[in-house]
Amino acid sequence: MGAGFLESNSGLDRACGDPGQFFRTHFKFLLTCRSMDNPQLAQLQQTLEHQMPITKAMGIEVASYIDGRLAMQMPLEPNRNHQVSAFAGSLNALCTIVGWGTVYLLLQQELLSGNIVIRRGKIRYWRPVYTPEFIATALPLPAQDVGYFFELLQSKGNSKIDVSVDISDDKGPYVHFKGSYVVQAS
Amino acid sequence: MGAGFLESNSGLDRACGDPGQFFRTHFKFLLTCRSMDNPQLAQLQQTLEHQMPITKAMGIEVASYIDGRLAMQMPLEPNRNHQVSAFAGSLNALCTIVGWGTVYLLLQQELLSGNIVIRRGKIRYWRPVYTPEFIATALPLPAQDVGYFFELLQSKGNSKIDVSVDISDDKGPYVHFKGSYVVQAS
Repeated sequence: MGAGFLESNSGLDRACGDPGQFFRTHFKFLLTCRSMDNPQLAQLQQTLEHQMPITKAMGIEVASYIDGRLAMQMPLEPNRNHQVSAFAGSLNALCTIVGWGTVYLLLQQELLSGNIVIRRGKIRYWRPVYTPEFIATALPLPAQDVGYFFELLQSKGNSKIDVSVDISDDKGPYVHFKGSYVVQAS
Repeated sequence: MGAGFLESNSGLDRACGDPGQFFRTHFKFLLTCRSMDNPQLAQLQQTLEHQMPITKAMGIEVASYIDGRLAMQMPLEPNRNHQVSAFAGSLNALCTIVGWGTVYLLLQQELLSGNIVIRRGKIRYWRPVYTPEFIATALPLPAQDVGYFFELLQSKGNSKIDVSVDISDDKGPYVHFKGSYVVQAS
């Protein structure tokens, strides 16, 4: 989204006053459109909002699902800490949900359902997050891991898979997370 | 708190209707009294409420600080997931804050202050938490670790320490967490 875009929406830009605020609002709108166009993502968003109320308080929103990489966004404001950066517990919660959602969508693509539970997690906080909105994105799942996951699920009725999730910008990672998820087929 | 206690408060018991609700309310009251009697714990609670708003939405409350072991409690309801057990992200957030608070109190006891940041965390979710309230308690810090922590802080102006936190009941652990915290003296 370059300067041309902003120019072509100069009315909106003026209406918002703060160009940063305009960018954030529009950015969120674009991402929301993208997720709402996909019924699986819309259903995932509904599951979060209706069945995991704290994710709503945190402002977690499903952003996109591109090339098997699920992304969710979170605003700083309700998740700020005493340093006015993002609270580590909120960052971990965001990554945990992105990992969980990745396994949820993996099952849905094969028209399967199951109970998905995180068994263990590891997280590294590289630097504080001060941006008003930030996005956690799952890393691509290795094809071999996905193959093994479905093989085990079919043969045993339960399976496991690791999902890595990053929160980063062009300067590098803020946070790197790895969660081990266990699935019981239903 | 045995049956005798409930009998001696039968008026309250009747007033509450649900003995489980009564127990939970009274349990919370006892813990709150204990934390509010200690100005350091009251200050820690205020820091959470005023400067980390999501901890208020999660219902995190400072419970006690006994023998150097900080404990905080959390209600299930705002932190429930689609399985009506506690959301892993909320459990991690609770443990993260207990670890952070442990280092905060460690500094306060030596009349020191500093910027405390979690650098990395590891968590193992052993079994789902279904209880209406649950408590995360820091494990005792080894004296050697505490000595090394203050030695480094004095000589370098920054230091680090690992804090382990458990959520458990008489059947064993629900969650075991270990966080590595870094402190920059101020």
